[in-house]
Amino acid sequence: MDGCPFCGIAAGRIEAARVWEDDDVVAFLDRTPIREGHTLITPRLHAEDFVQLPASVAAHIQEVGQRLARRMKMVYRVERVAFLYTGGDLPHVHAHVVPMHEKTDITSARYIVRPEEVVYDSSHLTTSMAALEAVARNLRLG
Amino acid sequence: MDGCPFCGIAAGRIEAARVWEDDDVVAFLDRTPIREGHTLITPRLHAEDFVQLPASVAAHIQEVGQRLARRMKMVYRVERVAFLYTGGDLPHVHAHVVPMHEKTDITSARYIVRPEEVVYDSSHLTTSMAALEAVARNLRLG
Repeated sequence: MDGCPFCGIAAGRIEAARVWEDDDVVAFLDRTPIREGHTLITPRLHAEDFVQLPASVAAHIQEVGQRLARRMKMVYRVERVAFLYTGGDLPHVHAHVVPMHEKTDITSARYIVRPEEVVYDSSHLTTSMAALEAVARNLRLG
Repeated sequence: MDGCPFCGIAAGRIEAARVWEDDDVVAFLDRTPIREGHTLITPRLHAEDFVQLPASVAAHIQEVGQRLARRMKMVYRVERVAFLYTGGDLPHVHAHVVPMHEKTDITSARYIVRPEEVVYDSSHLTTSMAALEAVARNLRLG
């Protein structure tokens, strides 16, 4: 799509530090990394959102993510690698793959309740089973 | 696995607000939700990390995530739903599916540079192409 930077990268018109590409996807380093090695995997086809991805493409992105995560574990000697679609920042679907050096590398602002401190004891947020069940009824797949 | 709460949920020994289950996976609401509807999808098989998942199971979790995300968009009238493996909190692999009401619902502590404020302009973190390329060489898949 004209004007889309990730389509530009996929087409080779925009430079990127690529770590993988094939007929369906391109993987390259994020330019504002959370951690060194922070990689984005994008489909070549322009779609805004991961829910729009054909199952085969979504599965393929996931598989490339697993391979990259295995590599990152070796390279960075980390126990965990995050894989995530957040969908907020740029309207061409992309999975982030990020080496996790600390639990705070990926978190939620919801958990950050005190200035300059990330609090993981979120027991005060625990919801009753009844409330959860009410929510579940709305979401349960048929 | 004995003592694993998610194996307990999969086996029906521990209660959970389930939103989907089939032969391979169980999806249920997180008890400390970031946002209402925050769901976890877990495989029945005990594995610690998403990189250990057989490709077919990983693909299936992704597909269930897409279905849940479509539902959440309707239910919560949100434009985006996050799908993520973070791997830090409990050693039975699980994907989080979270309705995104604000960009700050899922973020990184790396981006949080001022007290009580989440800063998205991370241009100061931008890395040179040369530095990115050096990193890419370590990660590029063969």
